[in-house]
Amino acid sequence: MAQLIALFLCRCRPPDVVVFPRCVEEVSALAKVCHKHRLPIIPFGTGTGLEGGVGAMKGGVCFSLRNMEQVLDLHPEDFDVTVEPGVTRKTLNAYLRDTGLWFPIDPGADASLCGMAATSASGTNAVRYGTMRENVINLEVVLADGSVVHTAGKGRRPRKTSAGYNLTNLFVGSEGTLGIITKTTLRLYGIPEAMVSAVCSFPSVQAAVDSTVQTLQAGVPIARIEFLDDVMIDACNRFSSLSYPVTPTLFLEFHGSEQSLEEQVKTAEDITQSNGGSDFQWARDTETRNRLWKARHDAWYAALALRPGCKAYSTDVCVPLSRLPQIIVETKEDLIENRLTGPIAGHVGDGNFHCLMVVDPNDPEEMHRVHLFTERLARRALAMDGTCTGEHGVGLGKRALLCEEMGPVGIQVMQSLKDALDPNNLMNPGKILQREEP
Amino acid sequence: MAQLIALFLCRCRPPDVVVFPRCVEEVSALAKVCHKHRLPIIPFGTGTGLEGGVGAMKGGVCFSLRNMEQVLDLHPEDFDVTVEPGVTRKTLNAYLRDTGLWFPIDPGADASLCGMAATSASGTNAVRYGTMRENVINLEVVLADGSVVHTAGKGRRPRKTSAGYNLTNLFVGSEGTLGIITKTTLRLYGIPEAMVSAVCSFPSVQAAVDSTVQTLQAGVPIARIEFLDDVMIDACNRFSSLSYPVTPTLFLEFHGSEQSLEEQVKTAEDITQSNGGSDFQWARDTETRNRLWKARHDAWYAALALRPGCKAYSTDVCVPLSRLPQIIVETKEDLIENRLTGPIAGHVGDGNFHCLMVVDPNDPEEMHRVHLFTERLARRALAMDGTCTGEHGVGLGKRALLCEEMGPVGIQVMQSLKDALDPNNLMNPGKILQREEP
Ligand SMILES: Cc1cc2nc3c(=O)[nH]c(=O)nc-3n(C[C@H](O)[C@H](O)[C@H](O)COP(=O)(O)OP(=O)(O)OC[C@H]3O[C@@H](n4cnc5c(N)ncnc54)[C@H](O)[C@@H]3O)c2cc1C
Ligand SMILES: Cc1cc2nc3c(=O)[nH]c(=O)nc-3n(C[C@H](O)[C@H](O)[C@H](O)COP(=O)(O)OP(=O)(O)OC[C@H]3O[C@@H](n4cnc5c(N)ncnc54)[C@H](O)[C@@H]3O)c2cc1C
Repeated sequence: MAQLIALFLCRCRPPDVVVFPRCVEEVSALAKVCHKHRLPIIPFGTGTGLEGGVGAMKGGVCFSLRNMEQVLDLHPEDFDVTVEPGVTRKTLNAYLRDTGLWFPIDPGADASLCGMAATSASGTNAVRYGTMRENVINLEVVLADGSVVHTAGKGRRPRKTSAGYNLTNLFVGSEGTLGIITKTTLRLYGIPEAMVSAVCSFPSVQAAVDSTVQTLQAGVPIARIEFLDDVMIDACNRFSSLSYPVTPTLFLEFHGSEQSLEEQVKTAEDITQSNGGSDFQWARDTETRNRLWKARHDAWYAALALRPGCKAYSTDVCVPLSRLPQIIVETKEDLIENRLTGPIAGHVGDGNFHCLMVVDPNDPEEMHRVHLFTERLARRALAMDGTCTGEHGVGLGKRALLCEEMGPVGIQVMQSLKDALDPNNLMNPGKILQREEP
Repeated sequence: MAQLIALFLCRCRPPDVVVFPRCVEEVSALAKVCHKHRLPIIPFGTGTGLEGGVGAMKGGVCFSLRNMEQVLDLHPEDFDVTVEPGVTRKTLNAYLRDTGLWFPIDPGADASLCGMAATSASGTNAVRYGTMRENVINLEVVLADGSVVHTAGKGRRPRKTSAGYNLTNLFVGSEGTLGIITKTTLRLYGIPEAMVSAVCSFPSVQAAVDSTVQTLQAGVPIARIEFLDDVMIDACNRFSSLSYPVTPTLFLEFHGSEQSLEEQVKTAEDITQSNGGSDFQWARDTETRNRLWKARHDAWYAALALRPGCKAYSTDVCVPLSRLPQIIVETKEDLIENRLTGPIAGHVGDGNFHCLMVVDPNDPEEMHRVHLFTERLARRALAMDGTCTGEHGVGLGKRALLCEEMGPVGIQVMQSLKDALDPNNLMNPGKILQREEP
C-alpha cells in the first residue's frame, strides 16, 4: 500500500522554498542557481493534478508560475494563441470570448494550460477535439541547467511539421521531470454555431457503452459523451439537486451548425433507443447546459459528499472501446465485493473512466483495500490492451504500474531520455520514474 | 549547393549489403550483429521518401523490410489495426475494404505505413484526419543495440494515454535515426457514407487561399483542399488529358452523410464564389473522383514531363494559414525572376505547399540557382513563423536549415536524444542531424 499512502502524504510534503518568477529570464536564472547547488525543482501550475505531481519528495525549490499570467500572440486567423503558465483554461476562454474562438480541452478543474500540457490532460471534449498531445503546437521550456528551448523553434506555429524529433510531444506529458514549461502555443477552434446537450438513462452499463460505440461507429462527430454509473448519478442528484433516474446514464453534447446538429442528434437518439435508453432530456439553452456540465464537473465533490470527512482518490484506466462494458461490470462487482465507495464517471468515447474512491485516510484497513482494488483495476486494464492512466499521468502512485505497462526496455528508454536531459535528476525527482539519482 | 547535390548523389550511393529480414526476431538479430561490428543500419520501406533518407552515407547495411508484409490484429470495433513494415497504405486499404473502415493518411505515393510513420508523413487528407503523428497508437521498434521496445507497451492500444514520456511520437518522424520500426498500430476511421469532389478556378492565388481560410473558419470539416497554381494545372492538363482553366485552382473533397455533405458543399461554394471562384465542377461518382485525384497524385510526374530528361526536387515549407497568399505570391515571383520551372501544389488547408522543381542535373549553374531558390524559400517560411518541412522530413538536404529553424539549444536537445538512444551513431547516420559520430 506504499503507493497510495505516499500519494496522500506527499500532498502535505512542502518544498524548502517557493519562488514566484515573473518571466522566463527569471525562471532561467533561478534554475541556474538550483543547478549549481543541485537543488530539486518542482514546477507548480494550479495544483489541481491528481497524482501527487507537485509533492517535494526530496525538498527543493517549488517554482510557482502563477505570476506569469499573460496571454500572448493571439492569431485568430491562424487559430492559435500563446499563453504563459499562470493562464488557466477558463481565463483563456474568457479572453477569447469576442473572437469567435475557443480552446476546448476541458479537464473539469480550472487548471493552468501549461500544467495541462505537463500532464497531457484531456477530459470531456477529447472525443471530438483530442487531448493536449494533439493541441499543443509549441512550448518554451527551461531545462534543468537553465537553458531555454523552444520545442518547435522560437515563435514557430505551423499546423504541421516534420522538422526533426518531435520535442513538443516529448515535453507534453513529462510532468515537470524534463523542464519547466514557460509558454505554450495552442491550437484554437471556432466556437460552434450551435451546441445542445442531453441526458439519457439506460437499463445497464452494457446498453450505455454499446450506444457510445455505435454512435462513434456511425461517424457522429459527438463532442462529449460521458458515462455516470448508478452510484455516481445518485451522488450527483444529491449534490447538485437534480433528479435523474438512478441508473447508468450518458451525458451527451453535440456541436455544429443548426442543421448538422439535427442529424447528429437524430442518429444518436435512434441508437440510444435501440439500446433501451430513455428519451433524451434536453438542455438546449446555455443556462441548462451549464447546469448539466457543472453537475458533471462537480462529480468529484459529489463523491466526496457521500462520506464527509473522507478523502477522494481517482483511478484513471483507459481501454479499447470494445472492452469497456466488461471492465466496468467487473469493476463494479469488485467494488461491491470489497465494500468500497467508488462511483464511476468516464469519458467513455475514449475508453477512459474513473472510479472516484472515497476513503477514510485514518482507516488503514480500508486504505489497504482501496490500494489492492486500484492495482487490480489497473491490471485488468493492462490485460485488456489498455493503460493505467488515460489522462492524469503517472506522478508518484503509478510508477510501479508504469513498469508493468511499458516493460523493462520501455522504461530503460524513458530513463535514458531523462538522464540525457536532466543528468543530475533535479527536475521533479521521483515522479514518473522510480530510479534514484545516479 | 552542397546539400542539393548531396541529395541527388545519395540516391545513387549504395549500401554495402542489403538484408531482407522476415520477422522482428531476425531484425533484432541482424541489428545485434551490426552493433557488434559497428556497421551503419539504413532502414528501407518503399523508397518513396523525398529527402534522401535511404542513402547509405557511410555504407553499411540496408534493412529492406518488404518481406514483413502481414496485416495483424485488426480490431474493427476499436478502430485500430497493426501492420508490419512491408504493408503499404494501398494494401492496407484493400485489405480493409469489406470492414467499412479505412486509413485516410495519403501521401500520394503508395508508401509503406512504417515508412510513413518514420517520416511523419501526411498529404491530402491531413486537414481533416491529421498526420501520422495523430494516427499512430503504438510502434514496435528495434533499437540500435538490437533490443526491442514497444513505444506504448506491448500490444497496447488505448485511444489516449498519459503513461510516461510519449515514446510513440518520438519515433514518429525520426527517419530511421533512432531505430527500425517493425510494427505500427494505426487508428482507423469509418468510410464516410458519401464523398464528393469538386474543382474550382480562381482569378488569383489570394482568392484561392482566402477561400481556403474562410472555409476552415466556417467550421466546414473539409477532407481535402488542394491548391494548384497555373503552371501546375497546365502541366496536369497535359499529363492527364484534362482541360481545366489555366489559373490558380482548388481541388476539394467533402466526406460525410448525404445530408451533411449538402450543407458543407453549400457553405464552401458560397465562400469560393464570394472570392470570385468559378462554379464547382463536380466529381460525384467514384470513377470521376478517382480520375481527379489520380491527376493530383500524378502532379510529380506531370511536372517532370514538362522537361523530359530532367530530375525533380520538391520543396516542402509550411506556414500559418494567414501567411500563405504572401509566401506563394513572392515565391512565384522568385521562380520567374530566376527562370526556374517549379509548378506549385499544396495542402493549403495545413499551410503546406510544394514547388516541384524540375531541374537538369547536368547543368551545375541551374542546379545552383535551384539551390539558392530553395534556401530563400525556406528562410521566407522561417521568417513567417513556419517550418522548412511540413511533411517530407529533414533527411540530408535540410540539416542546415533545421539548425536555423530550431536554434542551437533545440539542436542540442535533439542531439542528446540521439546520443542517448544510439550512442555509436549507427542508425541511419548523417540524417536529420549533421554532427559526425562522437
Ligand atoms: C475535480 C477535478 C477534476 C479533474 N478532471 C480531470 C479530467 O477530466 N481530465 C484530466 O486530464 N485531468 C483532470 N483533473 C486533473 C488536473 O486538472 C490536470 O492534471 C491538470 O492538467 C493539472 O494542471 P495544474 O496546472 O493544476 O498542474 P499541477 O497540479 O500544478 O501540476 C501537475 C504536474 O504537472 C507539473 N507542472 C505543472 N505546471 C508545469 C509547468 N508549467 N511546467 C512543467 N511542469 C509543470 C507539476 O510539476 C506536476 O507534476 C481533474 C482535477 C480535479 C481537481
Ligand atoms: C510522387 C510522390 C508524392 C509524394 N507526396 C507526399 C505527400 O503528399 N506527403 C508526404 O508526406 N509525403 C509524400 N511523399 C514522400 C513519401 O511518400 C513519404 O515520405 C513516405 O512516408 C515514405 O515512405 P517509404 O516507406 O517510401 O520510406 P522510404 O523512402 O523507404 O524511407 C524514408 C525514410 O524513412 C526511414 N524508414 C523507412 N521505413 C522505416 C522503418 N520501417 N523503420 C525506420 N525507418 C524507416 C528511411 O530510413 C528513410 O530515412 C511523396 C513521394 C512521391 C514519390
